[in-house]
Amino acid sequence: MARIKAGIVNVTGYVGIELARILHQHPLVELISVTGRSAAGKNLGDVFPHFGSGDYAIKTDLDSDIDVAFSAMPHKGSVDVVPGLLERGIKTIDVSADFRLKDAGEYLNWYGFAHPVPELLGKAVYGLPELHRSEIVAASLVANPGCYSTGAILALAPAVREGIICGDIIVDSKSGISGAGRTLSLASHYSECNESTAAYALEGHRHLPEIRQELEMLASGLTLMVTFVPHLVPMTRGILSSCYARLKDGKLARGSKAKEELRQLFSEFYEGAPFVRVVDEPPQTKRAWGSNFCFIYPTIDLRTERLVVISCIDNLVKGGAGQAVQNMNLMLGLPETSGLETLAVYP
Amino acid sequence: MARIKAGIVNVTGYVGIELARILHQHPLVELISVTGRSAAGKNLGDVFPHFGSGDYAIKTDLDSDIDVAFSAMPHKGSVDVVPGLLERGIKTIDVSADFRLKDAGEYLNWYGFAHPVPELLGKAVYGLPELHRSEIVAASLVANPGCYSTGAILALAPAVREGIICGDIIVDSKSGISGAGRTLSLASHYSECNESTAAYALEGHRHLPEIRQELEMLASGLTLMVTFVPHLVPMTRGILSSCYARLKDGKLARGSKAKEELRQLFSEFYEGAPFVRVVDEPPQTKRAWGSNFCFIYPTIDLRTERLVVISCIDNLVKGGAGQAVQNMNLMLGLPETSGLETLAVYP
Amino acid sequence: MARIKAGIVNVTGYVGIELARILHQHPLVELISVTGRSAAGKNLGDVFPHFGSGDYAIKTDLDSDIDVAFSAMPHKGSVDVVPGLLERGIKTIDVSADFRLKDAGEYLNWYGFAHPVPELLGKAVYGLPELHRSEIVAASLVANPGCYSTGAILALAPAVREGIICGDIIVDSKSGISGAGRTLSLASHYSECNESTAAYALEGHRHLPEIRQELEMLASGLTLMVTFVPHLVPMTRGILSSCYARLKDGKLARGSKAKEELRQLFSEFYEGAPFVRVVDEPPQTKRAWGSNFCFIYPTIDLRTERLVVISCIDNLVKGGAGQAVQNMNLMLGLPETSGLETLAVYP
Amino acid sequence: MARIKAGIVNVTGYVGIELARILHQHPLVELISVTGRSAAGKNLGDVFPHFGSGDYAIKTDLDSDIDVAFSAMPHKGSVDVVPGLLERGIKTIDVSADFRLKDAGEYLNWYGFAHPVPELLGKAVYGLPELHRSEIVAASLVANPGCYSTGAILALAPAVREGIICGDIIVDSKSGISGAGRTLSLASHYSECNESTAAYALEGHRHLPEIRQELEMLASGLTLMVTFVPHLVPMTRGILSSCYARLKDGKLARGSKAKEELRQLFSEFYEGAPFVRVVDEPPQTKRAWGSNFCFIYPTIDLRTERLVVISCIDNLVKGGAGQAVQNMNLMLGLPETSGLETLAVYP
Repeated sequence: MARIKAGIVNVTGYVGIELARILHQHPLVELISVTGRSAAGKNLGDVFPHFGSGDYAIKTDLDSDIDVAFSAMPHKGSVDVVPGLLERGIKTIDVSADFRLKDAGEYLNWYGFAHPVPELLGKAVYGLPELHRSEIVAASLVANPGCYSTGAILALAPAVREGIICGDIIVDSKSGISGAGRTLSLASHYSECNESTAAYALEGHRHLPEIRQELEMLASGLTLMVTFVPHLVPMTRGILSSCYARLKDGKLARGSKAKEELRQLFSEFYEGAPFVRVVDEPPQTKRAWGSNFCFIYPTIDLRTERLVVISCIDNLVKGGAGQAVQNMNLMLGLPETSGLETLAVYP
Repeated sequence: MARIKAGIVNVTGYVGIELARILHQHPLVELISVTGRSAAGKNLGDVFPHFGSGDYAIKTDLDSDIDVAFSAMPHKGSVDVVPGLLERGIKTIDVSADFRLKDAGEYLNWYGFAHPVPELLGKAVYGLPELHRSEIVAASLVANPGCYSTGAILALAPAVREGIICGDIIVDSKSGISGAGRTLSLASHYSECNESTAAYALEGHRHLPEIRQELEMLASGLTLMVTFVPHLVPMTRGILSSCYARLKDGKLARGSKAKEELRQLFSEFYEGAPFVRVVDEPPQTKRAWGSNFCFIYPTIDLRTERLVVISCIDNLVKGGAGQAVQNMNLMLGLPETSGLETLAVYP
Repeated sequence: MARIKAGIVNVTGYVGIELARILHQHPLVELISVTGRSAAGKNLGDVFPHFGSGDYAIKTDLDSDIDVAFSAMPHKGSVDVVPGLLERGIKTIDVSADFRLKDAGEYLNWYGFAHPVPELLGKAVYGLPELHRSEIVAASLVANPGCYSTGAILALAPAVREGIICGDIIVDSKSGISGAGRTLSLASHYSECNESTAAYALEGHRHLPEIRQELEMLASGLTLMVTFVPHLVPMTRGILSSCYARLKDGKLARGSKAKEELRQLFSEFYEGAPFVRVVDEPPQTKRAWGSNFCFIYPTIDLRTERLVVISCIDNLVKGGAGQAVQNMNLMLGLPETSGLETLAVYP
Repeated sequence: MARIKAGIVNVTGYVGIELARILHQHPLVELISVTGRSAAGKNLGDVFPHFGSGDYAIKTDLDSDIDVAFSAMPHKGSVDVVPGLLERGIKTIDVSADFRLKDAGEYLNWYGFAHPVPELLGKAVYGLPELHRSEIVAASLVANPGCYSTGAILALAPAVREGIICGDIIVDSKSGISGAGRTLSLASHYSECNESTAAYALEGHRHLPEIRQELEMLASGLTLMVTFVPHLVPMTRGILSSCYARLKDGKLARGSKAKEELRQLFSEFYEGAPFVRVVDEPPQTKRAWGSNFCFIYPTIDLRTERLVVISCIDNLVKGGAGQAVQNMNLMLGLPETSGLETLAVYP
């Protein structure tokens, strides 16, 4: 059987190169075209030596005969690229934020630009397979979720949909530095961020509207008050999200039996989700390093009747390139886990 | 003027050796006696090469002519040591948890032992100078606060005392690995905890009763519902605490003016506190590395009317040995900052 | 085609669990049996949560119907296990040092025990495929090289065999902490080794006799004087070896042309070696993270006419489990790269 | 007694800010003036929050009434600043390379510019107090050594001066990332250098001519062939240098007695050097973190009759700002250790 032909726009960022790594190893897909701006004309192996022999020439434009494209452009860049791909009938997964939000007005609020193709926002499917699998299967454009959003939404979705919590929600996330990207900045300069932890974006982080949008869809009428505070911790990969909300009275049993019910509820919610593991001990981010798994530990602070859910992912895989490939698999009718079965590299 | 003579019981843990480092450099105090169990008979410089020439012999018992003693025994160990020191008229700072809680019953709940000298709990002063300065000045026994407790209480005290928040409080703390001590464990084995972040103690961490005790003293009648979740992040030193609570209606102005009022309120609360800095940008833990400073950034999530306070400290200094020396200074009538003026080692 | 059945003795160390990870993903092999001592009775996924669902039960003994076995016992432990495996006709790869040295007397010198089955030392093949491929193909017992040895021998073999260097050789190696294993020790306690670099084993490291043995085989008469100094650097995985030796007069051209000749010589030596990449820029260890590749950068310090070769590997893959699987592939007639084609996880 | 008035040109790099930290705490010196380019107009505490209250205004020019100045300009920048300071009679310590080399021609070779004031090269004293204390005492211009040079020269000086080694020397150094400075670069971008080790500058590093110059002064006629290879390891601070040379026959006793003689020789060489500690176990870089100490461990590889010396320093203190202050103390007649007595911050 001929392998499906894939291309990546802007391969030289961390999500882009991670896409290339995963597609390079995908048994049913062939990566035939990659583009870059500053690196155009080089081979991928020149810029990223772990790629070795240099079979991939970085060009300025995608080859024309691809079946599926990934846009790894930064936000405000994908809106220029994606419409053309769709016109050419190429199924597209966009890893930027440009098609994640349903409300075009939010782009002005959060990203500072008027969305040039708002009509595409309705067509784009938010690419979280655990919530939107059937829509993704039918989609021609999938907006791959933000890294923080993936961890937070997966941690909270079962509780929100089942209506067991009040609307007051806190998401406290801790991310590795690769989330800040490959562009140089003082915040990701080694000596500045090594051996240090800090909160940032306390005025509001751009992944908040995604988190709200997706949770509100599940909440059926409940008004959510979500506070989301991201933190940088000194590691390369990984996001741990700690989520807090008050339990509604009477929804779960009392005491330790409530914890069992909660576990059951989460396990059932994610039945059939091959990359979500509801675990019975608090997970470490490094158990996801290099893999597409999301580990979720739901529990209850019995002293305060509060739900606490801890989730962890690799921000570049389930929080980026791996999820994009998972979406591609669904869009193309491939097995959902194809090319994504590798375990975490531990320790 | 003759320098004050100090001794340290159990110098070989991380707080113990940090006490030795600070006292070694203290201009008004002379460290004349240190004890250890397994290392007895060696010089401090043999066990800790950065101490160099080995002027300090590790013995099994403290010298008799000391003016002030630090007990760096683990919990359940200090209760055996402290009464004898007090009987000999030696002012004592205990860095374990053994004298922090006022309610003797809590020791059974949280530490699994019946407190053998509950009458001392009333005499012991909780050694957070920013809350109990005058009591510390008069104390013969000071219970040095836990590392997490220091960061959390300092972050929340102004808001609790001023009554601007509701009683539902979340403290999400991120600690460096040295907080787990020098005793070997898989959790602090390099390859297990490096490049990883995890939550732990979700059933309840032992610093929670301290945090509640101190905040409730300030809350005058308000029932507090505190959820405290500690996390380990891959760095040696530092604790960042992110604290969340709903603002009470009508206590502060609306909008960005509320942030100014909040800053003002915190600054006034800590006026005269030489080691607390209320800052106007989210702090990084590494700005406290090796110093006794606590940085506090109070702000408001205007979308949800929620107070967010970020604090950071060096867990071994303000969260341990530095605060113990600050307490010693107060107990002995020395300048509060004596021996503690060094800046953070950055980067 | 039926997949080959493999077993691992002592799966719970870092090389053992890395073997399990690679074999789990091997397309032609099925891991059907794993043993452990303290963890016997548990599932692999209980001890190592990234393994997930727990299809692997840890037992005390290997299943009887395996085709190939890996012994991941520590040294002095494999000698008890391997003879029995061979008697049962099971092809065996031993990752300990117990069968690496040809001279039984060296075990007394370096490992402090009289080798109990010295007759097997002659039958065992030193499992460095780049030097012993045809012998490995025919072997029933392969002794998998030490992690440092792999990096050092691969860096030096071309120059030694071609006779372009004098016998005075220095190998200065820098290893990540996982090389120290999963057993707890102060040297691998996070707060002790993080943010620190140190040399160790200056009296002689146990990988030295391996390095000498293999290089002397290539040196045909030249007496080698090898100084090998290992260092620990604060990272989980990776070994970088910097190797130094004086060039013999007249063997290479003068000046920068000599560098070209040298590159050519190394490239030819490793032609047909699928996991060695002779590169034209100094490599970083992280470019090998999680992969079986060895990167080698040979150059000349023209000011002193000295050969300098830098090699890097992932100590747990090419320096351990990956190389063991490469050996297995050769022993079983499988493609050499089968199950080992994944790229490094970068960044 | 009036405190000496000091100024720093270009305080905003890592050596500059470390100078400010040390001088801020110096009991006999007052830092009264700091300059910066991009940060001019701000307070030091705005740019470096650990400095706190902001008593230091960053200006474009030094105040006129200073007694001593530090130039923390990059190389090629100090030559523009230093002559003017000297003309104004201000004792000057230059932390750049601009006055380290005696041979003006070397600046063209290594730094790519013709030295504009070669006459000052003869007046400048190379600021390694352990070799040039008396000259420093009398100097008006001191060229502070490079970080690598400090570690390498201190490790080798005793052996070179005593003539116990052959001239073939290898220096393999491992540096923390802060050595690469505060200027952004891909090489010090967190995700690129974290969890990775690499060699660099294999064509020749700029600290090599310093190392050669100083060792040749001690070698009295011996031609030295020094190969110096620097490496970056993932830690913020610290340099470990591993130095190798063949012992000359007959200079030391044979066997383990030779090691004692060697230790003795090193100890005597550094008698009276308050910041050098000849130790009897291989040192870790973190034992120097934040302190001005250099730890030196000399030993012999008895199998090959090779001298091996391991040294370690904090690259920003003894390898930079601390040594500069040590030089200042000597130039001004202050106690050599004044302001530099703090121990390492460990762990």
